[in-house]
Amino acid sequence: MTENDLPVVAFHPFRWGDPQHATHLPAAAKETLAAFGVKEPAPAVEPGAITLPDVALDAATLAELAAVVGPEHLSSAHEARLAHTRGWSTPDLLKVRAGDASDAPDAVLYPGSHDEVVTLLQLCSRQNVAVVPYSGGTSVVGGLAPAREGFAGVVALDLGRLDAVLGIDTVSRTATLQAGLRGPAVEAALGAEGFTLGHFPQSYEGASVGGYAAARSAGQSSAGYGRFDEMVVGLTLATPRGTVQLGTAPKSAAGPDLRQLVLGSEGTLGVITSVTVRVRPKPEVRVFESWRFPDFETGAAALRRLVQDGPEPTVLRLSDEAETGVNLADPAAMFGGGPGGCLAVTGYEGSAVDVAARRAGASAVLREAGGEPLGPEGGEAWRKGRYRAPYLRDPLLDEGVLIETLETVTFWSNLHVLRAAVTTALTDALTTQGTPPLVLCHISHLYETGASLYFTVACAQTEDPIAQWSLAKSAANEAIRGCGAAITHHHGVGTDHAATYAEEIGPLAVDALRAVKRALDPAGVLNPGVLIENLPLRDDAAVGE
Amino acid sequence: MTENDLPVVAFHPFRWGDPQHATHLPAAAKETLAAFGVKEPAPAVEPGAITLPDVALDAATLAELAAVVGPEHLSSAHEARLAHTRGWSTPDLLKVRAGDASDAPDAVLYPGSHDEVVTLLQLCSRQNVAVVPYSGGTSVVGGLAPAREGFAGVVALDLGRLDAVLGIDTVSRTATLQAGLRGPAVEAALGAEGFTLGHFPQSYEGASVGGYAAARSAGQSSAGYGRFDEMVVGLTLATPRGTVQLGTAPKSAAGPDLRQLVLGSEGTLGVITSVTVRVRPKPEVRVFESWRFPDFETGAAALRRLVQDGPEPTVLRLSDEAETGVNLADPAAMFGGGPGGCLAVTGYEGSAVDVAARRAGASAVLREAGGEPLGPEGGEAWRKGRYRAPYLRDPLLDEGVLIETLETVTFWSNLHVLRAAVTTALTDALTTQGTPPLVLCHISHLYETGASLYFTVACAQTEDPIAQWSLAKSAANEAIRGCGAAITHHHGVGTDHAATYAEEIGPLAVDALRAVKRALDPAGVLNPGVLIENLPLRDDAAVGE
Repeated sequence: MTENDLPVVAFHPFRWGDPQHATHLPAAAKETLAAFGVKEPAPAVEPGAITLPDVALDAATLAELAAVVGPEHLSSAHEARLAHTRGWSTPDLLKVRAGDASDAPDAVLYPGSHDEVVTLLQLCSRQNVAVVPYSGGTSVVGGLAPAREGFAGVVALDLGRLDAVLGIDTVSRTATLQAGLRGPAVEAALGAEGFTLGHFPQSYEGASVGGYAAARSAGQSSAGYGRFDEMVVGLTLATPRGTVQLGTAPKSAAGPDLRQLVLGSEGTLGVITSVTVRVRPKPEVRVFESWRFPDFETGAAALRRLVQDGPEPTVLRLSDEAETGVNLADPAAMFGGGPGGCLAVTGYEGSAVDVAARRAGASAVLREAGGEPLGPEGGEAWRKGRYRAPYLRDPLLDEGVLIETLETVTFWSNLHVLRAAVTTALTDALTTQGTPPLVLCHISHLYETGASLYFTVACAQTEDPIAQWSLAKSAANEAIRGCGAAITHHHGVGTDHAATYAEEIGPLAVDALRAVKRALDPAGVLNPGVLIENLPLRDDAAVGE
Repeated sequence: MTENDLPVVAFHPFRWGDPQHATHLPAAAKETLAAFGVKEPAPAVEPGAITLPDVALDAATLAELAAVVGPEHLSSAHEARLAHTRGWSTPDLLKVRAGDASDAPDAVLYPGSHDEVVTLLQLCSRQNVAVVPYSGGTSVVGGLAPAREGFAGVVALDLGRLDAVLGIDTVSRTATLQAGLRGPAVEAALGAEGFTLGHFPQSYEGASVGGYAAARSAGQSSAGYGRFDEMVVGLTLATPRGTVQLGTAPKSAAGPDLRQLVLGSEGTLGVITSVTVRVRPKPEVRVFESWRFPDFETGAAALRRLVQDGPEPTVLRLSDEAETGVNLADPAAMFGGGPGGCLAVTGYEGSAVDVAARRAGASAVLREAGGEPLGPEGGEAWRKGRYRAPYLRDPLLDEGVLIETLETVTFWSNLHVLRAAVTTALTDALTTQGTPPLVLCHISHLYETGASLYFTVACAQTEDPIAQWSLAKSAANEAIRGCGAAITHHHGVGTDHAATYAEEIGPLAVDALRAVKRALDPAGVLNPGVLIENLPLRDDAAVGE
């Protein structure tokens, strides 16, 4: 196939996001980094110079696959394979910088229809070929690096050609979207009809609908628009055994909600080829503001009041003292000092009347709870820079900084214990290695009964930053598990969290998931090792022991 | 065991609800019934005169079971077995009135702890004894009448002794409730701490927490408080293989939401012994009102505006012209004529400020959308009589009326098509049998993208009212399926809907559910034939055909 026939990969391989938004570190940041003992590492291997493993699939299998999608929609070219190698976690980037592309798929397939996906899955099951469903490609938890032992090879199923809006029901306010639609394309299509999805994860520019669904995405406006899993009212799943179609009604008592079994299955049970989602009218008005609280506990209590008793803003977040101090929310001013205390951002979207009422009500609550209004400037800066923070990672890695994020979620009464435990675990694990870190934290998703915590960690890289981070990450996972919190709020499980996830849900729930997988994917070709580790099934005969 | 050791069964066997609320038909109703050709049927067989099948379990098995719970917590007495025979659908009542108690369990067990439930399930798995988890006992879809072929016997697991509030987290606003707690007991316990669950199904007096969870209950205040499945943040499931504990956080991306796989599983995957639910502060203020709309379409469009654009009342419902005409909402005035048009009820609960704001906003929308305010009288009458309507069924059956309800749910754009199809199906199926029916309908649960439809059907009984209803019910099911709607909104699947449910979700989803069941209940003893019909599993080897 020629380069032009390939779907556009919006993301530059191995530097986050749209190349035209690539950024540099401000001078203030560089000074701070020197104080942390950061030293410039060996330069990254150029993508073109990276050696890929030989294509493991034989010509006959490749020809069979090509016959399904058309030869122009299969590629074993270096660029295509490299671009579909792993995702966007810091270890993923560090591996490629070091020239390691050992997880590259043998070929990339670009199916053009749901039926082609089903046929490919049946073919891969027969030929024992592992399949990585690939949507936006923005996984940060190893969700695109399945186990390959025991398989004839691995193919990436790039859903980029499934990029149609299949229908908008303006009465029911739903839209049926194919999996390969990226965030901006969804908003453009819905916007033309006067609607918005309201789903704005930080990976908005790159991530797509299939990934939102498969990994239970939560956008930055989740307070107002809900999580992606709350938006889905229907979905179509391609499996090696055929099609599963779910969602006859918004909600029902017709058995378990099987949509919620597919959402979060991360490509292990089937390939979500389209979803039907709730949509909302485009907001007439949008107001963003910032607030200062004296400390994190006061700020968290104030935000809790809003989600428990209302009125609830559309966007609601709170940085802790450390994050407020480095001003990560405003990349242009990063490390340049912040306003002190803890910064909160509130955003309101909707009709003019609704926004005015909610803003007045929420502002009164925040004021009474100890908040100081800082006006719209900080809120607007956050809104405009909301997709920019991840762009800072590449220049930081260039400078020799180890920087990564992780997130969790728990009930309100456990929140501060959890934050302290994870902060301590990360700090100790990195300090022990001679690289004391900055650990920043914010709340960005709030529920009546609890909230997420999002951590950003930065320190000097050691000689082996992958091993260095692995120790820190293990310590954080252990702290999260020890607190009884969830191993992830919105990044997903992937391969990185699979072991901790199994502990979280316990062996019987793991067996239940494996049973569903066996029912839908008997050959086990779908994303092996992602979500569920390849543990042997507990002996069914062990009943009643 | 003595009668006093048994947990109190609040419901009188085979006449709905609390005997002190038993009611009689108003004179106006009797006149109407005569016009429908209703004739008094043969009197019902007295419960004490009903012959039960012999106890199928041998003494050794009964002794083993008794050893787990203590002999005082196992009963094979006539009253206990009869009281645990089937549920409260009209066919269930008609069968008992005819002296048919062939579905009686062989024994009733009253476990006192989660661990006892696990042990019982292991024992029943070894001894091939089918188990009916029995909570409030109010199923109206055959959820308490499992298949018994191939089993040594059937026991009912009455969870009435699991009636503790295990904890209230006032910061996170959650409460952990054991399965056997009935609605009023939950409200009493939470109310003492200043909270409410806000879950008020029509079966409130009899139904209990385990059933709410297992059957995806939706209370009459679902607009404001959400469905029961939306309240659950955690649950504990006893299975024959041990315990499954789910819910580390309100929401997460840690895999599929397995809570939603257990909710709605109707006792087929395990016994839910406790749930952790979101609770809310007890409302300061409560206002109920009624409205008249010229017709159902206008009323439905008005209510749709409220749930799509707000502000949303706590209770929201709309009767169609027929239901408004017989004034079913006010049993005291039933069949006495209504206000004409279509009656809507709106209810607001919360803080004084919040109620005032929502009421003003919603009233303006309803007025603009064609509603005429009728003041608080009708709303208050509905609120006070909300649990009384089912009490009318027994005197109607006594008079020779066949009366039953069914419900469904769909997206807004399909709502009127669905209502017409179901009404026509019911009318035709009963008119053909010489008993033209009254078919009444209301909307009582609304979502941004759709709404439920609840039908009440009444006509003269034929000689064989069970067969008569079966034909009508089949026609309704076919109409619902033909419209692509869900076979149930809140009654559940049970045995009555299992076949249609299988069609609704399709063979692969059925296989997935059966696979989960096999993983957790390898001997298949839990509520066999409920939810999932005992179809042979599709051949796993059929991959890629």
